[in-house]
Amino acid sequence: MINYNLGKGEFENWVITEEKFSVLLQGKCEAIFCLGNGYMGMRSATEEKYPYQTRNTFVAGTFNKFDANEVTELPNVADALEIEIFIDNEPFSLQLGQVIAYSRTLNLKTGEVSRNIIWKNTTGKVFTINSKRFVSQDNLHLFCSSVTISCTNDVADIKIVSGINGQMSNSGAQHFHEGEKRIFEGKIIQMTSKTTESKINFVHHSAHKTFLNNKEIDVDQHFGMDRRKVFITYNLHLQKGIEFKFDKINSIHTSRDIEFIRKTKEEIVAISFEDFARSWKLGYEVLFEKNVQNWLSFWQNQDIKVVSKNEIEQLAIRFAIYHLKVMTPSHDARMGIGAKGLSGEGYKGHSFWDTELFMLPYFTFSQPEKARKLLEYRYHTLAGARKKAKENGFKGAMYPWESAWMDDGEVTPVWGAADIITGEATKIWSGFIEQHITSDVSFGVWQYFKITNDIDFMEKYGYEILLDTGIFWGSRFQWNEDKQRYHIENVIGPDEYKEHINNDAFTNHTAFWCVENAIFFYNDLKESKPDVFKILNQKLNLDEEIEILKEKLVKLYIPEPNQELVIPQDDTYLLLDDIDLTKYKNQKHVGSLFMDYSLSQVNKMQVSKQASVVMLMYLLEHKFSKEIKTANFNYYEPRTLHDSSLSLSTHAIVAADMGELEMSYKLFQKAIEIDLGPNMKSSDHGIHGASIGGIWQIMINGFAGLRLMDGVLRIEPKLPETIAEMSFNIFWKGERIQCQIKKNIALLQKSGTAKMEIMQNGKIISFTDKLEIRF
Amino acid sequence: MINYNLGKGEFENWVITEEKFSVLLQGKCEAIFCLGNGYMGMRSATEEKYPYQTRNTFVAGTFNKFDANEVTELPNVADALEIEIFIDNEPFSLQLGQVIAYSRTLNLKTGEVSRNIIWKNTTGKVFTINSKRFVSQDNLHLFCSSVTISCTNDVADIKIVSGINGQMSNSGAQHFHEGEKRIFEGKIIQMTSKTTESKINFVHHSAHKTFLNNKEIDVDQHFGMDRRKVFITYNLHLQKGIEFKFDKINSIHTSRDIEFIRKTKEEIVAISFEDFARSWKLGYEVLFEKNVQNWLSFWQNQDIKVVSKNEIEQLAIRFAIYHLKVMTPSHDARMGIGAKGLSGEGYKGHSFWDTELFMLPYFTFSQPEKARKLLEYRYHTLAGARKKAKENGFKGAMYPWESAWMDDGEVTPVWGAADIITGEATKIWSGFIEQHITSDVSFGVWQYFKITNDIDFMEKYGYEILLDTGIFWGSRFQWNEDKQRYHIENVIGPDEYKEHINNDAFTNHTAFWCVENAIFFYNDLKESKPDVFKILNQKLNLDEEIEILKEKLVKLYIPEPNQELVIPQDDTYLLLDDIDLTKYKNQKHVGSLFMDYSLSQVNKMQVSKQASVVMLMYLLEHKFSKEIKTANFNYYEPRTLHDSSLSLSTHAIVAADMGELEMSYKLFQKAIEIDLGPNMKSSDHGIHGASIGGIWQIMINGFAGLRLMDGVLRIEPKLPETIAEMSFNIFWKGERIQCQIKKNIALLQKSGTAKMEIMQNGKIISFTDKLEIRF
Repeated sequence: MINYNLGKGEFENWVITEEKFSVLLQGKCEAIFCLGNGYMGMRSATEEKYPYQTRNTFVAGTFNKFDANEVTELPNVADALEIEIFIDNEPFSLQLGQVIAYSRTLNLKTGEVSRNIIWKNTTGKVFTINSKRFVSQDNLHLFCSSVTISCTNDVADIKIVSGINGQMSNSGAQHFHEGEKRIFEGKIIQMTSKTTESKINFVHHSAHKTFLNNKEIDVDQHFGMDRRKVFITYNLHLQKGIEFKFDKINSIHTSRDIEFIRKTKEEIVAISFEDFARSWKLGYEVLFEKNVQNWLSFWQNQDIKVVSKNEIEQLAIRFAIYHLKVMTPSHDARMGIGAKGLSGEGYKGHSFWDTELFMLPYFTFSQPEKARKLLEYRYHTLAGARKKAKENGFKGAMYPWESAWMDDGEVTPVWGAADIITGEATKIWSGFIEQHITSDVSFGVWQYFKITNDIDFMEKYGYEILLDTGIFWGSRFQWNEDKQRYHIENVIGPDEYKEHINNDAFTNHTAFWCVENAIFFYNDLKESKPDVFKILNQKLNLDEEIEILKEKLVKLYIPEPNQELVIPQDDTYLLLDDIDLTKYKNQKHVGSLFMDYSLSQVNKMQVSKQASVVMLMYLLEHKFSKEIKTANFNYYEPRTLHDSSLSLSTHAIVAADMGELEMSYKLFQKAIEIDLGPNMKSSDHGIHGASIGGIWQIMINGFAGLRLMDGVLRIEPKLPETIAEMSFNIFWKGERIQCQIKKNIALLQKSGTAKMEIMQNGKIISFTDKLEIRF
Repeated sequence: MINYNLGKGEFENWVITEEKFSVLLQGKCEAIFCLGNGYMGMRSATEEKYPYQTRNTFVAGTFNKFDANEVTELPNVADALEIEIFIDNEPFSLQLGQVIAYSRTLNLKTGEVSRNIIWKNTTGKVFTINSKRFVSQDNLHLFCSSVTISCTNDVADIKIVSGINGQMSNSGAQHFHEGEKRIFEGKIIQMTSKTTESKINFVHHSAHKTFLNNKEIDVDQHFGMDRRKVFITYNLHLQKGIEFKFDKINSIHTSRDIEFIRKTKEEIVAISFEDFARSWKLGYEVLFEKNVQNWLSFWQNQDIKVVSKNEIEQLAIRFAIYHLKVMTPSHDARMGIGAKGLSGEGYKGHSFWDTELFMLPYFTFSQPEKARKLLEYRYHTLAGARKKAKENGFKGAMYPWESAWMDDGEVTPVWGAADIITGEATKIWSGFIEQHITSDVSFGVWQYFKITNDIDFMEKYGYEILLDTGIFWGSRFQWNEDKQRYHIENVIGPDEYKEHINNDAFTNHTAFWCVENAIFFYNDLKESKPDVFKILNQKLNLDEEIEILKEKLVKLYIPEPNQELVIPQDDTYLLLDDIDLTKYKNQKHVGSLFMDYSLSQVNKMQVSKQASVVMLMYLLEHKFSKEIKTANFNYYEPRTLHDSSLSLSTHAIVAADMGELEMSYKLFQKAIEIDLGPNMKSSDHGIHGASIGGIWQIMINGFAGLRLMDGVLRIEPKLPETIAEMSFNIFWKGERIQCQIKKNIALLQKSGTAKMEIMQNGKIISFTDKLEIRF
């Protein structure tokens, strides 16, 4: 019911279209058509009400805790996208009457969602009902809708009810005190409200404009108010063939906004009113034009052009870039990206390792200024990470598995859903023992530094993270008397189907890397930046701490390949039962294993949720030979169910590295299908942010083969059979590199004149402006 | 779309039927088909979801305050009435496909709501879908549903999702902490939760039974959980012509329940589980039969039989009795009746003067044990009434205009909706200055005493209320130096279109009565019950306080009739502008005046919301001559818009008293139409409890003409032209009196042998067993 290939002309491979509306499958387009600008995001629920719809609007970073025994989450704010349409006193509904024509489209190029409907009501009147909406890239506080209605064969009484509805909640959890409601000048609807625990003030504005055949007119209106609701009702007797256009301009401002930090509520209300009133007067079309200009200039630099037999590839990469843009609060370093972006209640808006390992590489390579903001967020959360370390009896920065407010520290829920059979609450262990996140953050900083050479960032923020994460690990290592080695026991690795394991390969290897790196930068700073060193030494007690790291690191046990070159995922994995997974490998929906087994049974089987050792092969690839990579891929992939959306992209890239292009391409297709596939339920809880970041990585780091390898840019394209050519820009140490990758030739063109080194086939090539490589 | 006259045979004049379903008009049958048993009540929302539906379940007395700046309200608890039905993977919906036959019925005799539907889905399969439900009168914690589905022309895949949904809220205000969810024995669903402020524990249970052609079978099932939700999904491939029956048994228990007062949460959970499991095993039919037996024995004593040309009268009085039963928490003296009963969020479950002046007479005359519970509630709220008096600088018991928890005192919201134009919050003055409620409560106690002669009640509770309300008024009177009289200034009378008025006739007259009465009972007690007197004298400082009352009472100004015999409603009413009200008197919806005028303009016009002086004529009728009653009715009725549902019944009774039977009957018809009329929106916020109590009063106190007059039962039938005969029971001083009233004869038959006096035409008649009166 979704057509991924309808665009024509300038919009070819830019649009996704829903061709049939289904009340049970609304979640799909609500999520994949999600609009946003990083400041706010909203699911594309329809104007009219249906059962089974999820109306969500989120403002990044406005976390609130509903209850003492719940964790903080991103509140679902008042809804202004609803526009109730009544025709001859019946609510307009696609479930009634006859739908003669229907399409709903997301245009990735312009960030507009539109619907085009021809509909016959139950009495035989035929209506053309079109709507469109966008969230402004030009003014982050602004979003706009427009609805047109005309009746081709009769007159009709039209009633529209539209305003601001603060009765929204997060599945029942109400995050707002009831606020104040006003209407100014008989036109501008205002609602203010405040979060219950974090005490963030919200100011919502909405106002309308009404047109007949594009001429602005006044329509009979009256005001209404209800609990947490304020709205205007418009009544119109519509003549046959006349088009009624109803525009709705809306804004949200909050006291969390960086420009309002030292402002009073009254000042915020006054400024936001001015801002809104100015925009409203301009009207939908002018505001949309500004938004489009912003999108077009974005795409000019950021588009990735793919020449391919399968058009879905071109669309998929644009879809990924679109969503990475709309979900990322790059305007404000005090907040991170939620695992579901701003497209659903899933994961409560919290940030995970998804950011650093899956989404950050996109930003680091293509918009380093945004990558920096995301890493500054991790710097701002250091206090929380240190609090977490201290609470757990460790030193340094122990990053939270789930991160929200800057100072919160760990916000992973402690207790999950009770086992509905035994009634016992399930403890969620990730917040306690899924500890590789600390290395992942450190890795993200290091990768950013290597790619951008942003010394300013490193001196202000980066070094401190690299050093303090190393210090954490030093305090975390556990001496094993028998083995005379340091172990890391009782953890969860990336494969979350194994809890309370010892010496998880990914965790131990990346911890080793993290400590090694801390020692390196300690030495480096001490030698080359004495001023920076002095401050950090004082703050982190480096001389003493790094000494400990040095002593411990050489004694850390890191799992080595066995005779078959397989690295044991942990101390016991290779000893567990090996069961026939055919049924689950062919599953239509993730998690089918749990129809037959409980988690404690799964804990005792050689079955993995997602890439773990294979992820390690990718992340620290310079440490493993091609043979080891292949052996591990071949061992673990058949035992991996890809039940996490973070799994396929890693496997696709490593498969490409192994030269298994056909397998790589298959995994890539599956990765695309997580959000863009025929499964209409997979995106219900929101877009899969890490999967989308992974799609970019498959295409650029995998297929195009551009990769940071041991600190240098390496190029080794692995274009699958279908793809003839890819063109795109990346940024490398402050310069833009235009890249054109074909089957047997790569053309790189720099924007600057600095000498650049590139690795190809193990050799370093230097160039200053252009480089042509043939394979 | 509502048929009030469909019942046949034993259900003639017992059923109300909705003959067409409309998504916009769901509120009507949700409210007027409300089910309940006084312990709990629930709107009759459909099993399946639709937009514009309001799913409400309330448990009496479980008040909670969402927020510091809101007032306490009755929380909308977890919903167990929803049963999601999917046929061939599409949700069953009356908006889709074709409805071949439809009816939804409330049977007042058995308390069952049923639906009978024949429906063709979008692929041409024809289904018979019937459902029924009841709230048990036999076990107050229990409510049950049953759905049957069969396909007459094909096979079909049926999926049913059913459980407990705690995502409900009061228009967005969430009153519950997220609780615990369990499933026992793979069958019994349990959810516990707790109110956020009042900390009341709730225990919800649901379990199902499934049948094919009435044979109990197991159906493929699996469990599901979501935030605040737990449910079971059933899947079945249904053969052509086979009937699938799906029964759902549910219970609610809370720590507020009187039997759980000293129990721990664990004990409550254990007891309620046992209670539920026992019931569930019995199944729908057995439980329903117990419920029916309870209803039938109720109706045997409580039915009012009407022989009339218009069948609606018989139905309307049964409808009133039905709702007065289901809305009234007569099991527990710690709670009152909400203005909307348990049928909607309107008025937050608070009790008003509606109870004593509109609903209590029904209970006092027909079920005195329930009346006593309602008055005990007012006794239990004395602490709050004294707190209110103290806070306002007065003595005695100043009853709250709105009452909820026993000790709360006043719970009327202080600030109402902001004026949406000016943005200024409107102060709600009722909680401060609508003070006649104190006299109204006192009147209710006195009336109960006079009708029941319940000395035990009076000694434990009643005298204290009568005395302390009098003491309040004594402290409230304000000395006017000019007039050398006590005034009562700055009040709102029953006519709420006049705020901040002085010497409201209703307030002053009833306050006079209240003080007079206190003095009387002071003297009476002192003389005849020295023991009781001693305790109360000590507690209330009676000797001193009553002395003050005696002094002040003689100097209280009470508005007297003017030359035209009209009693001025207040000091200024008769001087205000008299405008042409024709347009508003003919209004289709109440409140039309405010389309043209603001409240402050209305304050300056001779226009009334509801009976005020006319109410006084009715309440203290022995104080006014027929001429004065007529003059005031004729003056005020044309100036009264009946914008309150409390207005029509009073006017209808006074019109009957005046002999204006035609006018009386018209007003009666309008009163019936408040809930049973063609206006499909009038009951959206809930049933009109006072209006329904008023209907009973019109028929018994008005038409049948049985009335407490100056302490004696007076009989003066005023049957309207349409009604030939009425038969019913009332209770008088502990005896049941069977009454049969015809045009020119009344037959009374007592259950006991005590001598009874009755007033007819100003004369007292005595009898011991039977009395026949001819007119």
